Amino acid sequence: MTDIEQLLAIEEIKLLKARRDRACDTQDWELYRALHADHHVSHNQGHERWENADVMIANVKALLDKIRTTVHHSHTPEITFDSPTTAKGIWGMEDLIFDTESGELLLHGFGFYHETYEKIDGKWLFTSRQLKRTLVREKPESKIA
Amino acid sequence: MTDIEQLLAIEEIKLLKARRDRACDTQDWELYRALHADHHVSHNQGHERWENADVMIANVKALLDKIRTTVHHSHTPEITFDSPTTAKGIWGMEDLIFDTESGELLLHGFGFYHETYEKIDGKWLFTSRQLKRTLVREKPESKIA
Amino acid sequence: MTDIEQLLAIEEIKLLKARRDRACDTQDWELYRALHADHHVSHNQGHERWENADVMIANVKALLDKIRTTVHHSHTPEITFDSPTTAKGIWGMEDLIFDTESGELLLHGFGFYHETYEKIDGKWLFTSRQLKRTLVREKPESKIA
Repeated sequence: MTDIEQLLAIEEIKLLKARRDRACDTQDWELYRALHADHHVSHNQGHERWENADVMIANVKALLDKIRTTVHHSHTPEITFDSPTTAKGIWGMEDLIFDTESGELLLHGFGFYHETYEKIDGKWLFTSRQLKRTLVREKPESKIA
Repeated sequence: MTDIEQLLAIEEIKLLKARRDRACDTQDWELYRALHADHHVSHNQGHERWENADVMIANVKALLDKIRTTVHHSHTPEITFDSPTTAKGIWGMEDLIFDTESGELLLHGFGFYHETYEKIDGKWLFTSRQLKRTLVREKPESKIA
Repeated sequence: MTDIEQLLAIEEIKLLKARRDRACDTQDWELYRALHADHHVSHNQGHERWENADVMIANVKALLDKIRTTVHHSHTPEITFDSPTTAKGIWGMEDLIFDTESGELLLHGFGFYHETYEKIDGKWLFTSRQLKRTLVREKPESKIA
């Protein structure tokens, strides 16, 4: 990759991440799904592995849809390239999950997202995501983490 | 725009946003005003539209000056160009407003800033800002949101 | 510097910052030390000046190692160059310090990092860091701020 190709790819991956966080917190599941390759694997602490994008979207929707208000904020990315079409990223993160009706805070967490990306048909997509927690505070009965 | 022109413009718009958040939270109203075009329009949930930059600055100063300590943090921008001199941006956001004297938290909110920018006399400036809340927690009597 | 050299340098400095926040919050002190020039000076509100990188690392380890879980999130950088090998940065910031064993929140703060960077042997490193607080809430007996 030339310098300019690399800078453009970094910007596109940052944009991909921005859209994922916004799609999650505005519950735009069509956009959320479109950002992930079919073979995307999610592995978030406290959950089983979700082995493809359709399984992931079904689980995320079941956990959050309508009854939860979420905040996912991602910070200071470290993006590195394994090839012109494959990359890794680490992001600092904070998430909050509220009960939409009562406004009660159910979960407040911190950690790092470890992700991989692949450029497929000219577009960068997520191919895996692993959340490593540094801290999570949760109401025991809410079972979200 | 060439690729490099677009990357430079994205960086300038990110810098504009960074200065806005800092100017707000350090109450540097001269800097704050200088970042906005004269015809800037603000439309924040819970407030009337502020139809130009001078009306905005008068309102922001009245709400915050001295008696409030604020935190405005903006995340993972999505910046897109309509032309070489006009752009749109969406940013995840969190804000906190404290009573400066007592240290009491009066407001804690989350949402997305939807903004427009214009390059005027060689400098990118804000031309509009709309805050769409996902969640806000507020002391009822504080009337800030 | 050409435009492209400047964009690359900005990206490298953002990466340096990302690694610092992650090294701090994962207590990877070897990485943390490697990001700072030998003559790095830290001046954080509420603490004495730390006049070089080895003094800094000894102090940071003593404050945080094992018994604390920390979160350091940095936002919306303003990076400007004094020369092709020296730069300044301002970042919005939030930090939280928890007692690792009890999970109790000991400190929650906000402010701005004012930093300088130098390119030494082809790599950007921190040469100074000053934390200017806008607000800090602390348990009086915890003595961390």
